[in-house]
Amino acid sequence: MEETKLIRPAPAIEAIPPTVPFIGPEQLMRQTGHAELVRLGANESAFGPSPKAVEAMAAELPRLSWYGDPESYDLRSMLAVKHRCAIEELVVGSGIDELMGLVVRAFVAPGAAALTTRGSYPTLNYHVIGYGGRLVLAGYRSDGRLDLEALVETAHRESVSLVYLANPDNPSGTFVSHDEMQRFYDALPKNAVVLLDEAYADFVDDGELMPATIEDRLIRTRTFSKAYGMAGARIGYAITARSNVDTLQKIRLHYGVNRNAQIGAIASLSDDAFRRFVVDAVAQGREDYARLAASLNLATIPSKTNFVCIDLGTADRATRVMNELLQRGVWIRKPAQAPLDRFVRVSVGTPAMRAAFEQAFRAVLAEVPA
Amino acid sequence: MEETKLIRPAPAIEAIPPTVPFIGPEQLMRQTGHAELVRLGANESAFGPSPKAVEAMAAELPRLSWYGDPESYDLRSMLAVKHRCAIEELVVGSGIDELMGLVVRAFVAPGAAALTTRGSYPTLNYHVIGYGGRLVLAGYRSDGRLDLEALVETAHRESVSLVYLANPDNPSGTFVSHDEMQRFYDALPKNAVVLLDEAYADFVDDGELMPATIEDRLIRTRTFSKAYGMAGARIGYAITARSNVDTLQKIRLHYGVNRNAQIGAIASLSDDAFRRFVVDAVAQGREDYARLAASLNLATIPSKTNFVCIDLGTADRATRVMNELLQRGVWIRKPAQAPLDRFVRVSVGTPAMRAAFEQAFRAVLAEVPA
Repeated sequence: MEETKLIRPAPAIEAIPPTVPFIGPEQLMRQTGHAELVRLGANESAFGPSPKAVEAMAAELPRLSWYGDPESYDLRSMLAVKHRCAIEELVVGSGIDELMGLVVRAFVAPGAAALTTRGSYPTLNYHVIGYGGRLVLAGYRSDGRLDLEALVETAHRESVSLVYLANPDNPSGTFVSHDEMQRFYDALPKNAVVLLDEAYADFVDDGELMPATIEDRLIRTRTFSKAYGMAGARIGYAITARSNVDTLQKIRLHYGVNRNAQIGAIASLSDDAFRRFVVDAVAQGREDYARLAASLNLATIPSKTNFVCIDLGTADRATRVMNELLQRGVWIRKPAQAPLDRFVRVSVGTPAMRAAFEQAFRAVLAEVPA
Repeated sequence: MEETKLIRPAPAIEAIPPTVPFIGPEQLMRQTGHAELVRLGANESAFGPSPKAVEAMAAELPRLSWYGDPESYDLRSMLAVKHRCAIEELVVGSGIDELMGLVVRAFVAPGAAALTTRGSYPTLNYHVIGYGGRLVLAGYRSDGRLDLEALVETAHRESVSLVYLANPDNPSGTFVSHDEMQRFYDALPKNAVVLLDEAYADFVDDGELMPATIEDRLIRTRTFSKAYGMAGARIGYAITARSNVDTLQKIRLHYGVNRNAQIGAIASLSDDAFRRFVVDAVAQGREDYARLAASLNLATIPSKTNFVCIDLGTADRATRVMNELLQRGVWIRKPAQAPLDRFVRVSVGTPAMRAAFEQAFRAVLAEVPA
């Protein structure tokens, strides 16, 4: 029947290769028959949302029949205070993934180039390919850090429209200090949009981050998915110049954000004690993982996030260890691209989850030789 | 500074005119100073979500730190039973608005034509313009019904890639019976995708709807926003051929749906008694509005939805009545385009909300002469 097919997608869409997105843990449970998994694969917060956010959301569930405020006005008002910016310099979306898609759509014309690091957060690549952009890649340094010099050089050479950088980075967990970041930013072409993905910035002290410059060539994205423990709510935001907010306003889904997510985000911002508790608990977890790895003579990459990469020497061993852990009900992930593909990436769980990981990890390592 | 501006959106995005989306009731409250409004403007359900859905969602709020299943597998499994289709013929998104954007992006290439009815659900137009399509419009008939003959004729003449039809329609509330619908569908060009928006189909008996044909030229969309009372949750789905699901799979936001929305949707489907209660209560409300209008010598358009259009004779009077009602704390909307612009559109509220509307409406009509 193929030759008589009358319905064809638009050519640019038909040209996109079939996608293999992150496989979710629910699918892995269906495949392996596990009724539950120790969820350490998606950097979800093991400490849940703020109890005040849960309380606020529970109270409002009967009004879930109402659409959320399309302007997210109350939330943006609070965020404007937090980030010392104007409400007109903020746009709320259903998570950074959605905002990233809007930014690519808005600023990377079909055929234009977007630059990222090979093996960094793949959803950026997904959007660039999806909107017909040309993906240009720099590599990680051999120590797992972003190669800022290569990014700057490539950005100029390839005349890119957009430069993507996650800081802290995912999946490496590494962090670019504010001085380095500022030098990097200043060295980039002035006609390229810098998409600075700060999904994990809530784990970093404010003083360590690049100051909140409002410029039309800088778009910073933040989320309630990580330190705030609301990944399932799908809510994040971008901070940028009004001109860019006006542009996104022309294409964003105005009624796309869950009302309860708005309410939970507002309550979360009012509970900074909980965020600080999570940040401290996560720091403790990173230390536990570093100690565990050291006791096994394995290296780790210093991380400023809620996950740690552990070096298993080869990509093959890292893959086998990940798969064996899954068979034992422990779900982690691993970077897909060299040079990070010899690592496994483990999210910081609760102490009980870390203990479950340690037990399984020690057993699996003994079975999967280097 | 304009002349030295270095950051410019992609040309196709820059060409989109600034948008005026639906203004939300929250913004109207800020503008008018009302601390609350009788919300009868967005066809939200006044009966809320199913109590079983509220209970299920409340129980899972502490796990909102987990992403939802990107495959919405459990929900799609239930929907496959409900619609007697395969799970591979279903795709879940964060509301019909999002799915509609994906369908336009996938099937309306830049410059290709998409056909809809002038003044029908405007988010379709928003997406067509946003993705660089060419919007082709047929008119409503003078009785407020969709002009199926004009749509068929225009679809052929303009070689459109996509035909949009909402059934029941919004904002008219009218319904195309399954025989008419089948004839219309059969008469359309075979190489055009038919996007059949069934947001309000849960208010119609299954037997009155067009049978669930699975063909690659038919994409039906459904939502939990209306009869199921979960507009704020942002969850809907499309039913179509696997080939189209595969296409959307290449561009959809895989982690875009709120986890709690998935849980609420599943619980809602398990509580058909509640949906039937809502459908009956809404039918009662429509009758109340028809009686109210008749007592005021005003015509209404027969509606199969949770809203009713009331004829105020002229667009100017309809606008003034809507604005006066807002000053009194009653929020309704009105169609923007002729021939429906002389109507106001009022959602079916609870009996108390309808009584508040009636009181304010009678008072305002006395002040705003025909």
